[in-house]
Amino acid sequence: MPRDAELTKQRIFDAATAEFAGHGVAGARIDRIASSASANKQLIYAYFGSKRQLFEAVVSEHVRRFHDQVPFDPERLPEYAAAAFDYFTEHPEAMHLGSWHSLEPGETNHRIPVIERAIRTRSRLVSRAQAAGAVDRSIAPVDLLALLTAIASAWAMATPERNPRGGASVRIQARRRAAVVELARRLVDPR
Amino acid sequence: MPRDAELTKQRIFDAATAEFAGHGVAGARIDRIASSASANKQLIYAYFGSKRQLFEAVVSEHVRRFHDQVPFDPERLPEYAAAAFDYFTEHPEAMHLGSWHSLEPGETNHRIPVIERAIRTRSRLVSRAQAAGAVDRSIAPVDLLALLTAIASAWAMATPERNPRGGASVRIQARRRAAVVELARRLVDPR
Repeated sequence: MPRDAELTKQRIFDAATAEFAGHGVAGARIDRIASSASANKQLIYAYFGSKRQLFEAVVSEHVRRFHDQVPFDPERLPEYAAAAFDYFTEHPEAMHLGSWHSLEPGETNHRIPVIERAIRTRSRLVSRAQAAGAVDRSIAPVDLLALLTAIASAWAMATPERNPRGGASVRIQARRRAAVVELARRLVDPR
Repeated sequence: MPRDAELTKQRIFDAATAEFAGHGVAGARIDRIASSASANKQLIYAYFGSKRQLFEAVVSEHVRRFHDQVPFDPERLPEYAAAAFDYFTEHPEAMHLGSWHSLEPGETNHRIPVIERAIRTRSRLVSRAQAAGAVDRSIAPVDLLALLTAIASAWAMATPERNPRGGASVRIQARRRAAVVELARRLVDPR
């Protein structure tokens, strides 16, 4: 792809991230994305297909970035939970995209392949770590992963009553992070 | 209030619950609520004020129902987590209302009093239970409560990839519930 087209595609991606994170799929408007990216609306459809397909492309790319930056090691799950907590804190837009995907009625029947694959692969890795005695066996791998994600994202997904305007102080963030690590440890440490 | 007005208000409340649970605050339309409740649009504004005020009234009432049906006992927190898990499973609309409240940018500065009060009261109760030695002390009360809620709602808030279309089987639900109780126990049991 020529350099110019690369740059345009990148601008569309960034504008779409902001638009979908703020408004969800139903609420997002392609003409706002086009205007914010200084791109032609028809070009967006040509590159990405429908609005729903653009959403899926954006979510998939954010999931890949998360996987790149927060490596998954089944024998170091508390450290993974801490890194995920940090990532969600620093990238609220990634968290928001996932929330819209969970929440919007139109998403119920849309499973995103990169997320499905990650759940499958990670469940197998946890299962092996359980068999090797490195992870507690009393909770099924797929459930253990769901709980680990819930712990790491407890504050990223919380209502405004738990999340002070302007974000938590450094002290409170550190206290929450330590609580995440401690509970993750209790979830996975062999007993 | 006369009986007829009571019934109309109830119909508006039910229609508003469905509309907000499905579309959020920004996406909800008062005329759809009016039509579904067979009520006059002006009457809705007269009873509840703005669309945002109607949303807050609906969320507050659902929080009160949750508090009524899932009693909070700081000395029986794993049982509380199990009951909350059951409630979220049976009342996805209540969960969805809370998710929109957490997610929509317009909600950031709207704290809902009944939620704020519950967090304050429950933090005090947990703090006392910690002082009495009934609850583990290593995690701050307000953080312990946030984690407990995250555990109990892990699947109610999950993406479609974790939540099979048509809901989980009885067997899977029972397995998840047992995992919630087990992790809640590890969170709160004094060590």
